[in-house]
Amino acid sequence: MRDIARLLNDHRVGLGWQRAFYEDLHQHPELSGHEQETARKILDKLAEFNCEIISPIGGFGIVAIFRNGEGPTALFRADFDALPVQETTGVDFASTRLRPGTDGTLVPVMHACGHDMHTTSLLGACAVMDANRDSWNGTFLALFQPAEENATGANAMVSDSLVTRVPRPDVCFGQHIMPGRAGQVQTLAGPQFAACDSIRIIIPGRSAHGSMPHASIDPTYTAAMVVVRLQGIVGREVDPNDFAVVSVGTLRAGSTNNIIPHSAELVLNCRFYDSTVQEQVYDSIKRIVIAECQASGIDQEPTFDFFGHGELIDNDTSTYAAVRSNFDSVFGENSVDAQRTTVSEDFANIPRAFGVPYLYWVVGCTPQHQWDRAVASGRVREDVPVNHMGTFLPEFEPTVEASTKAALTAVLTYLGSQNVT
Amino acid sequence: MRDIARLLNDHRVGLGWQRAFYEDLHQHPELSGHEQETARKILDKLAEFNCEIISPIGGFGIVAIFRNGEGPTALFRADFDALPVQETTGVDFASTRLRPGTDGTLVPVMHACGHDMHTTSLLGACAVMDANRDSWNGTFLALFQPAEENATGANAMVSDSLVTRVPRPDVCFGQHIMPGRAGQVQTLAGPQFAACDSIRIIIPGRSAHGSMPHASIDPTYTAAMVVVRLQGIVGREVDPNDFAVVSVGTLRAGSTNNIIPHSAELVLNCRFYDSTVQEQVYDSIKRIVIAECQASGIDQEPTFDFFGHGELIDNDTSTYAAVRSNFDSVFGENSVDAQRTTVSEDFANIPRAFGVPYLYWVVGCTPQHQWDRAVASGRVREDVPVNHMGTFLPEFEPTVEASTKAALTAVLTYLGSQNVT
Amino acid sequence: MRDIARLLNDHRVGLGWQRAFYEDLHQHPELSGHEQETARKILDKLAEFNCEIISPIGGFGIVAIFRNGEGPTALFRADFDALPVQETTGVDFASTRLRPGTDGTLVPVMHACGHDMHTTSLLGACAVMDANRDSWNGTFLALFQPAEENATGANAMVSDSLVTRVPRPDVCFGQHIMPGRAGQVQTLAGPQFAACDSIRIIIPGRSAHGSMPHASIDPTYTAAMVVVRLQGIVGREVDPNDFAVVSVGTLRAGSTNNIIPHSAELVLNCRFYDSTVQEQVYDSIKRIVIAECQASGIDQEPTFDFFGHGELIDNDTSTYAAVRSNFDSVFGENSVDAQRTTVSEDFANIPRAFGVPYLYWVVGCTPQHQWDRAVASGRVREDVPVNHMGTFLPEFEPTVEASTKAALTAVLTYLGSQNVT
Amino acid sequence: MRDIARLLNDHRVGLGWQRAFYEDLHQHPELSGHEQETARKILDKLAEFNCEIISPIGGFGIVAIFRNGEGPTALFRADFDALPVQETTGVDFASTRLRPGTDGTLVPVMHACGHDMHTTSLLGACAVMDANRDSWNGTFLALFQPAEENATGANAMVSDSLVTRVPRPDVCFGQHIMPGRAGQVQTLAGPQFAACDSIRIIIPGRSAHGSMPHASIDPTYTAAMVVVRLQGIVGREVDPNDFAVVSVGTLRAGSTNNIIPHSAELVLNCRFYDSTVQEQVYDSIKRIVIAECQASGIDQEPTFDFFGHGELIDNDTSTYAAVRSNFDSVFGENSVDAQRTTVSEDFANIPRAFGVPYLYWVVGCTPQHQWDRAVASGRVREDVPVNHMGTFLPEFEPTVEASTKAALTAVLTYLGSQNVT
Repeated sequence: MRDIARLLNDHRVGLGWQRAFYEDLHQHPELSGHEQETARKILDKLAEFNCEIISPIGGFGIVAIFRNGEGPTALFRADFDALPVQETTGVDFASTRLRPGTDGTLVPVMHACGHDMHTTSLLGACAVMDANRDSWNGTFLALFQPAEENATGANAMVSDSLVTRVPRPDVCFGQHIMPGRAGQVQTLAGPQFAACDSIRIIIPGRSAHGSMPHASIDPTYTAAMVVVRLQGIVGREVDPNDFAVVSVGTLRAGSTNNIIPHSAELVLNCRFYDSTVQEQVYDSIKRIVIAECQASGIDQEPTFDFFGHGELIDNDTSTYAAVRSNFDSVFGENSVDAQRTTVSEDFANIPRAFGVPYLYWVVGCTPQHQWDRAVASGRVREDVPVNHMGTFLPEFEPTVEASTKAALTAVLTYLGSQNVT
Repeated sequence: MRDIARLLNDHRVGLGWQRAFYEDLHQHPELSGHEQETARKILDKLAEFNCEIISPIGGFGIVAIFRNGEGPTALFRADFDALPVQETTGVDFASTRLRPGTDGTLVPVMHACGHDMHTTSLLGACAVMDANRDSWNGTFLALFQPAEENATGANAMVSDSLVTRVPRPDVCFGQHIMPGRAGQVQTLAGPQFAACDSIRIIIPGRSAHGSMPHASIDPTYTAAMVVVRLQGIVGREVDPNDFAVVSVGTLRAGSTNNIIPHSAELVLNCRFYDSTVQEQVYDSIKRIVIAECQASGIDQEPTFDFFGHGELIDNDTSTYAAVRSNFDSVFGENSVDAQRTTVSEDFANIPRAFGVPYLYWVVGCTPQHQWDRAVASGRVREDVPVNHMGTFLPEFEPTVEASTKAALTAVLTYLGSQNVT
Repeated sequence: MRDIARLLNDHRVGLGWQRAFYEDLHQHPELSGHEQETARKILDKLAEFNCEIISPIGGFGIVAIFRNGEGPTALFRADFDALPVQETTGVDFASTRLRPGTDGTLVPVMHACGHDMHTTSLLGACAVMDANRDSWNGTFLALFQPAEENATGANAMVSDSLVTRVPRPDVCFGQHIMPGRAGQVQTLAGPQFAACDSIRIIIPGRSAHGSMPHASIDPTYTAAMVVVRLQGIVGREVDPNDFAVVSVGTLRAGSTNNIIPHSAELVLNCRFYDSTVQEQVYDSIKRIVIAECQASGIDQEPTFDFFGHGELIDNDTSTYAAVRSNFDSVFGENSVDAQRTTVSEDFANIPRAFGVPYLYWVVGCTPQHQWDRAVASGRVREDVPVNHMGTFLPEFEPTVEASTKAALTAVLTYLGSQNVT
Repeated sequence: MRDIARLLNDHRVGLGWQRAFYEDLHQHPELSGHEQETARKILDKLAEFNCEIISPIGGFGIVAIFRNGEGPTALFRADFDALPVQETTGVDFASTRLRPGTDGTLVPVMHACGHDMHTTSLLGACAVMDANRDSWNGTFLALFQPAEENATGANAMVSDSLVTRVPRPDVCFGQHIMPGRAGQVQTLAGPQFAACDSIRIIIPGRSAHGSMPHASIDPTYTAAMVVVRLQGIVGREVDPNDFAVVSVGTLRAGSTNNIIPHSAELVLNCRFYDSTVQEQVYDSIKRIVIAECQASGIDQEPTFDFFGHGELIDNDTSTYAAVRSNFDSVFGENSVDAQRTTVSEDFANIPRAFGVPYLYWVVGCTPQHQWDRAVASGRVREDVPVNHMGTFLPEFEPTVEASTKAALTAVLTYLGSQNVT
């Protein structure tokens, strides 16, 4: 264990290139499924190392295989897509990109969820692993996943024969930067990220001129009643000791001022830690939407389209115990307990495909003085930007150092020399 | 009077071209403000007549001045823009056009409000007036107005010096095809079409990831509460003996599945026959939107942008009496009493600019067998397509004949020879 | 005609007792169905006259038959029950009564709808008719009806053989005091008061402790959704040119703080001038309540109990013409046109039982200086107390004089000597 | 320890009277604050024992002091009021009582929360303690508390000088029967029952006749919007990882069919395990109610009256450890871990007044075959009656035995001979 700490603390490779690489990714974000440039930059960097490349796999997916003799196999995954969010950080490497969104209109694009940092850190870990082959044995898989934000990338890689195209790992890892003191590594056993699904609902109606409501069956009114009544599920139907989130991501009805439209579109986003609750809530959503359509006197049926499924991330207890012990050694008081978080990820689809245990953790990224001030004033919720906000920006240095070292620590917990002697 | 009936009944011009002209317009509709092709077609037709052209005026607006010696001046207005509606009539001249809508995305376009018929009829009236100069005296103004659907065209023509660029009329006319037995001409004195305004409301919120509703102030939820509560204005606040319509034309919030958006947009469409009720309702709308934002805990203020104003169309009593008498002669039992209708128009801005009286009427356009069957079965509301529906299509022959003759009858009521002897 | 005016203007009887009688009724109001004392006072007064009494009829109902030789028969009806309203007029004859309400709890009682005035005026008319038998011929029926407020009294009298127990009238009359300049008599032909029904709705649920909403199906939440959605009927489903009122009179759910109740009770009150609209709205109410119960996941059916039916009051045109002419003679500029009003009455059940025409009118009762000031300042709605308010109090003198004389004028229009010569 | 188990297992007193006593209480329930008969029965039973009585204290409260030489002092509390619930158990000792409720109307009364069982068990424990004085030393306080259901009884006893009128205990105990296999004793350290408050809210409006909604400001509509929007607090504003309950216990508006009332009354019931969440939710409730009143255009302010406060029951860790160990010995596999429950109690006010640690636990009471069947079929929620339902009835024998023994075990953990040798 001392070996890992020593190795990490005297970096036999310079990671000075990480800042430039990160800022370049940040300034040139790409939406899910369109990560062509980013994939190219990752491949260019990997070309500096002694590794085998599997690419493309599942769209713009990449796996770099670092072989180093006999020993276990460990996989680390980073994601690299961005979001349709307007950046307002004001930094000189801020994104000003506009790209066609899912409906064809131009939308701003931003790395508002830190995937640029995840990728930069995993490439840093690759550099260290590549340059220190005497410190470890076995096989290290660096997996770069596209299209995490729409929850399709992990499955796309699995569908593209991931399991047969790379060596089977013994363990998988992943991490996410989130609000928290920059440089803190937060871990827990059991549920870490929630399960989620998105649901696209089309509410039918009958169109008419805006002046003739009686000739219409107004789908916007029905949709509004549905939005209102959905909150009754969490407030009235779910056991208050259970956890459930039902949010509306999109509500669209009509395209002009004076026509009552013929339908309305709702897109919901739901979160759970428990599949019984999940099923109960989905039943309730359907029951409510169908009944509200009936209340409006609509003969047609509403439609429900489930997508964007995120598996529960449920950390393996013994993997946690092994890695946490090393995190404590390496990070000292910066190794802390995590809280369960309500967000979701498709990471778990990868270890699930291999049938192996995994650990997924969180690295704090909030600028340290900002975090300390917010904690002191009791204004964490108000003052700290969270993922997906236009103001979300990690403090580079402590965050990249912690996330690079955390990746190495976890991998070396299994591949480090002390384990094979 | 008999002169008008006789003139009209033995058409000294063939109007056979009207069908081809109408079908061409119908198949090639253009959205408000983009009527370039349509204006060109109108100008090409007008070039066949002996008239002076004022164009462009107020965008693609056109006035044709037919001078025929001393006498009064009468203006007839037709509009020629189309709507973002998907045509489903199934006729072989149906529109299949897609054009960029107000938000940039492609939308289907259709003459779903009969402006193609209005224009064809007025050109027919021009042809008859041009070919029968011995039957009338004075000046006939044929005004072709763009951009009626967004209620900007009439004012744009007025702003572009309409009043000084054409002779001042003594009276103005306009007509609209609507559901009703094809060929019936419906008139009344007093309010015919309602006053209206559209209101664009931006409801502020605070964006957050869909999994963290507590970090957001959800504007979609606020907007839904507003949509629901707006119906309480008509149901609870307006005297049930008064008339008011508050419809939601557009509700848009969010553009993806897992982000609670930072604002929601509502576009309302309101109708009245009485300005006191109108002011009361606008006060209530503002009060409700502001209070619902407060109920959600939003510090920012919602914004209100009024547009698309439609003046009340309030027919002059003596103009009505004079023209109705001739309608009765010309159309016999097809000249009937109109009902007040809830729709709005910007027509009245034109006579208002000149300070002259006007008459605006309705021509039935529903295929006669369809109308008769619907009346017989008590299913008019269910079975008869109304304006702005994708199935709205006038029965060509009786409709074009009635609307061409009605225009001529009204104009000749003032310019016909019998009036100058 | 001059005879009627002369007769009324030189009152050959003193009506000075009317004030004391009125104030006694006002101070001792009785709820519908419990009008024992009031009936006794009416009978005591009638005992002073030469008339035949039919009583009890339909509960505490009374008909006084004044026979005066050959001639037509005219019926005038006054009602005499009061309301569960807390009086706040501050007059020294204000009611301080508490009586058990429909649910057994004590409620304040008040003549907040002017039935004390109606009764006092009809007794005044009886006095004049009785004392001036040389001025008229025929039969005068003075009908005193209980239980108007719950819309049961008229039908109860009919069911109790009214038609066979009194002579068949040729015409029926009734009147109501309402806001308006005290002493003005307001009449119209056609619909005067709306049709109405009340509907008691029981919304089923499942009870649970307040801390366990997930074990309940919360009927209060369902009822709230219903109350909200009912306003969508008037705002979205009824033609805005039609008239409909859907009000909630009572909503009761639960009786303690920490138990989610097992059901909720709604009592609606609905008004119409048109039976097609009425049926459409009742269908919509049922559809909405049933669907909202389904949206809440309730298996049990809600129940609907219609009661308190009020017939449309639709004045006969020729009766109107005959009486209005005399009203104009007697009242001069105080005989004015009435507006349709949204309230309802069970009066029409009486002429309907006999199959005879009727006229029902309104007498203004607002203190004259209050009315004039409110009109001048445009604050009629804000400043003038309306029926059923705790501040509703007629200005005695002009109101009792106008309503007594109006009753006599109408009756004498048919029975006055000029009609039999 | 073995002593306690032995003592309990060979009961040197017969407790055969418990069934009759329990059925008598069950058949004659009394509402909070009206427990006169019940208090009399308890005093009659206590008169059989050698103890000092402090009564009345805090209304019908009673403390029995059993002194037995030197040693520690332990207090056990049982509550004895009943609820306004209609019993539907069908047993021959079912309650058929009707009593005036808080609003004066007659309501059914039932021991639907098991306080009859609590009282019977504590009296049983008194009997054993009294008859076995050689097995323990010190002072045993049996506290019988009225008015738990309205959360006033414990504070009333404290206010009535409880602390100075009885010896200061070293530890306090209480228990509650709830759904669970009859005879199971469920314990945990830390939060057991939630904190709660009730809030009475008066929503002002303006009354008018039901036919004139425009003359009213309808408080029922406002109240309905509030009920709907309150669910948005839990669903949208509270962190989904936190716990909060906002239920509506009572909603009352109007008392007749055709008058829109002048105000509406809401009674909320709220639950929390965390005071920060509690404050946030109370702020949100006030914000929403005030804003919804503004949305309705009401000038008057709504009022808020907090009552029925329940303290969090937060079991002391070392008391838990000491007693749980003995529960495990006495009850074997029937001593199990408890779940946090959402209900509330005023028990904690008693130990809090003395400043001493406490333990409060749950005893399962569901008939064993019913429980086992429900668990097997996964229908616990559907098939098992919970507290406050009309069907709630403990299985007598296992429940009374477990709750009597549990009380004795806890008390003897501190007073048992083994502790003083």
